[in-house]
Amino acid sequence: MKIKTAIISVSDKSNLKKLLPILKKFKIKILSSGGTYQYIKKLNYDCTEISNYTNFPEMLDGRVKTLHPKIYGGILNVRKNNKHKKDIKKENIKNIDLVIVDIYPFEKKLNSRLSFQKLIEYIDIGGPALIRAAAKNFNDVTIISSLNNYDKLISELKKQKGSTSYNFRKLMSAEAFSLTAYYDSLISGWLNKESKIKFPKTKTIHGKIIKNLRYGENPHQSASIYSTMDDVGLQQLHGKELSFNNHNDIYSSLNILSSFKKKIGVAIIKHANPCGVSAKKNQLVSFDGALACDPISAFGGIVAVNSIISNNLANRINKKFFEVVVAKGFSKSALKILKRKKNIRLIKFSNFSFINSQHYLFLGNTFLAQDSDSVLFAKKIKIVTQKKPSIKQIKNLKFAFNVCKFVKSNAIVLANEISTIGIGSGQPSRLDSCKIAVGKALEFVPDKIKGSVVASDAFFPFPDGIKHLIDSGVKAIIQPGGSVNDQDVINAANEAGIIMAFTGTRHFKH
Amino acid sequence: MKIKTAIISVSDKSNLKKLLPILKKFKIKILSSGGTYQYIKKLNYDCTEISNYTNFPEMLDGRVKTLHPKIYGGILNVRKNNKHKKDIKKENIKNIDLVIVDIYPFEKKLNSRLSFQKLIEYIDIGGPALIRAAAKNFNDVTIISSLNNYDKLISELKKQKGSTSYNFRKLMSAEAFSLTAYYDSLISGWLNKESKIKFPKTKTIHGKIIKNLRYGENPHQSASIYSTMDDVGLQQLHGKELSFNNHNDIYSSLNILSSFKKKIGVAIIKHANPCGVSAKKNQLVSFDGALACDPISAFGGIVAVNSIISNNLANRINKKFFEVVVAKGFSKSALKILKRKKNIRLIKFSNFSFINSQHYLFLGNTFLAQDSDSVLFAKKIKIVTQKKPSIKQIKNLKFAFNVCKFVKSNAIVLANEISTIGIGSGQPSRLDSCKIAVGKALEFVPDKIKGSVVASDAFFPFPDGIKHLIDSGVKAIIQPGGSVNDQDVINAANEAGIIMAFTGTRHFKH
Repeated sequence: MKIKTAIISVSDKSNLKKLLPILKKFKIKILSSGGTYQYIKKLNYDCTEISNYTNFPEMLDGRVKTLHPKIYGGILNVRKNNKHKKDIKKENIKNIDLVIVDIYPFEKKLNSRLSFQKLIEYIDIGGPALIRAAAKNFNDVTIISSLNNYDKLISELKKQKGSTSYNFRKLMSAEAFSLTAYYDSLISGWLNKESKIKFPKTKTIHGKIIKNLRYGENPHQSASIYSTMDDVGLQQLHGKELSFNNHNDIYSSLNILSSFKKKIGVAIIKHANPCGVSAKKNQLVSFDGALACDPISAFGGIVAVNSIISNNLANRINKKFFEVVVAKGFSKSALKILKRKKNIRLIKFSNFSFINSQHYLFLGNTFLAQDSDSVLFAKKIKIVTQKKPSIKQIKNLKFAFNVCKFVKSNAIVLANEISTIGIGSGQPSRLDSCKIAVGKALEFVPDKIKGSVVASDAFFPFPDGIKHLIDSGVKAIIQPGGSVNDQDVINAANEAGIIMAFTGTRHFKH
Repeated sequence: MKIKTAIISVSDKSNLKKLLPILKKFKIKILSSGGTYQYIKKLNYDCTEISNYTNFPEMLDGRVKTLHPKIYGGILNVRKNNKHKKDIKKENIKNIDLVIVDIYPFEKKLNSRLSFQKLIEYIDIGGPALIRAAAKNFNDVTIISSLNNYDKLISELKKQKGSTSYNFRKLMSAEAFSLTAYYDSLISGWLNKESKIKFPKTKTIHGKIIKNLRYGENPHQSASIYSTMDDVGLQQLHGKELSFNNHNDIYSSLNILSSFKKKIGVAIIKHANPCGVSAKKNQLVSFDGALACDPISAFGGIVAVNSIISNNLANRINKKFFEVVVAKGFSKSALKILKRKKNIRLIKFSNFSFINSQHYLFLGNTFLAQDSDSVLFAKKIKIVTQKKPSIKQIKNLKFAFNVCKFVKSNAIVLANEISTIGIGSGQPSRLDSCKIAVGKALEFVPDKIKGSVVASDAFFPFPDGIKHLIDSGVKAIIQPGGSVNDQDVINAANEAGIIMAFTGTRHFKH
């Protein structure tokens, strides 16, 4: 069936010039209103004003323009249904076969500093209603809800000689409902935040596609990456396309860096787990510290630097094989040096910020929503042993506990001089993680174990782990506490004459 | 401001009886249509039919009822705006201050076996348009989009003497937009699936709250669980409330069990990682096999049984401390035995099924969407060594590779007799995971290492890991292959006279 009438109402008119000649060519009549009507007339195309057609004035500053049964009857009637035919004939309603309507991009306004009341004004009522009506009746109606689809519509009209195919209309309908869902998710996310509703009865999470990835966590899985904000703040300056696992690792590294002071810290990541972290002021010292923790596993990992990479550091990085280098920035010469490696991915994160205060974990047919784990110490630290820490030890303990938060549970982090010297992760028992962490330190930095400190993400259920750490030379331990065996654990620490701090705050990460 | 006029249009009329007397008490006039109009009249309340008010007939089998400027003008006008006042006076429009509209639960229809064309009929256009208009203008209008809020409305009307407070209206507005977002997300998810669009430009993920949890991954994080389908198929028969981490572990266990044949297999989970898995036919043998792999770490874990737990097994389970027992079912006496422990959580999963073919990973301001890793062997297995495996060895290799898929990377799984005997997980280097897996086997089941098999989730980058495994007594290894050093690795296997299989399929899990 040839398209006879189209309704056009768009906020972004930039591509209408392309489209109007084609509509004219196929003798498609146009209904429009407000700014779109004026724009079309100015370009010298025929156009009927909606209020002329409905005999009802546009009112309330445009809040009510198209919400009229003559419009909706024209869109929603089932063309082959005789009762519907009679209904619309009786009311002198014309079929509307093509609906070209966009929605004003609400996220742009959300990012501006408009007041709550002003933002409400930008919630579109008429647009989504038209889009949804046309999308529902895609059997008979074509819905174009984005100017990105004008080219597709033009080639479809040409191919089908003034008509569109069922498959095209179905695709456009799916896209339209994806858009209205996204739009209302954006609004409800904002309103829930404003009303301090963390966990609404019905919850939607929305994203805009950034790009399709080559594949997912594994080559047989297809994948895409979506953004939940306009600008994710990451800029790739060089190298191959980022993979799914690169994205995951980069995020892990930025999570760690964002917990440090400005310009301080280096983190090396492998399989989304830190494999070496250091927070020394000097970036070279920091890099060396992070690398020393496990120079073998660092191979093929990603390195993240919380400052602008100097050419000295660039030279040092180039001596090793990293898949990705993430940095606050790169000096001109550093960039030149690093770019010598064709494949290395260079990522600048100067504009990056974590906006989401909630985290979601997908479990098949459910998902868990929770506050992001953004607090390091929810309670005051208590020293529970006879021996008390020095200021230097407190600094190291806090550093180690902070790193611990980003290591998959069970997590044990050995540290010395604000650098990790052994990380035990992902074990079913805490003793195992202790053994791994100590084993790493013994292997790569044995001279740094004496006098080192340890952090544990959760309490020690028994004194066995503590004893293993003490035997290796650890002098201070920080952990949440809270086990029924706390007293045994404290006793073991006191007997060995080491320091133990209880945080009261746990940091499981799975 | 007192509410003067309400519009009511609901598919679920069950609670209207409660509400109507209150509306009458505060002299709130009612506009309605169709079934709701008839229902109200039948209960002997005054009610104006919408078509009488708009002077426009209901048409297209109810597809167009309320989409009229006299309705939308009445909802959307800003009460304190003089221009708006003039606009509506001119067209003889009455203010509509209260909108009570629900949306027919589309997911119910999705679960029925209706045809695609029939399902489209259930997409509501008028309802969401009314809800969105009222929710936008919540400064002046109250939107009740769910019958769960009738009680709240009644007490609010009583408290405010026929009016509602700004905060109440704002809360109701947030809830309304959450509902319309959820509704369109449901529709777009369905349409995208029908159109085979895996990664739409704008994506929404939706869930309905099941309950607020006591806390999240850690006590300082608040959390809730949402379902993405009507019935998640899990039933708690006994014990304390499930925690966030319990849910995560239960899901991990069900993921493993669903990879086994019907009625076969036991998995013990700790920190979302398997700590022992067995797939023997006899549930007792399977339980013993899974437990033997790491009986110490199993403490406080969760045990999942792919069959109906007998009283023999219940007695055996009761000898250990598990937080959760997940099972296909429980014999009457088994249930009685297990319930002796007050706190143990008993979960029946007889109706459980994984519906989501996609998985999402949240990374701060982006998320990754990918196919679930639901294929074990995407390619044909190749034996790359001189020595070929026996049928028994092939069975064990496949079992080990399957378990490997559920272990966090890097993953190394030692197995013998269709039971794991050592699991290495979450390490930055493959050699480390090999050491952990062998270490576990040496500690708990040293007599089973001789003749055992090993699976690796990704290729061995160097022969070092292989050598460590061979030295411990392993006789066959399954791994994806694909390293530049594959030939060195194969040579090492040939030199030792062991078997090696390449799958070509990787199973990273982070």
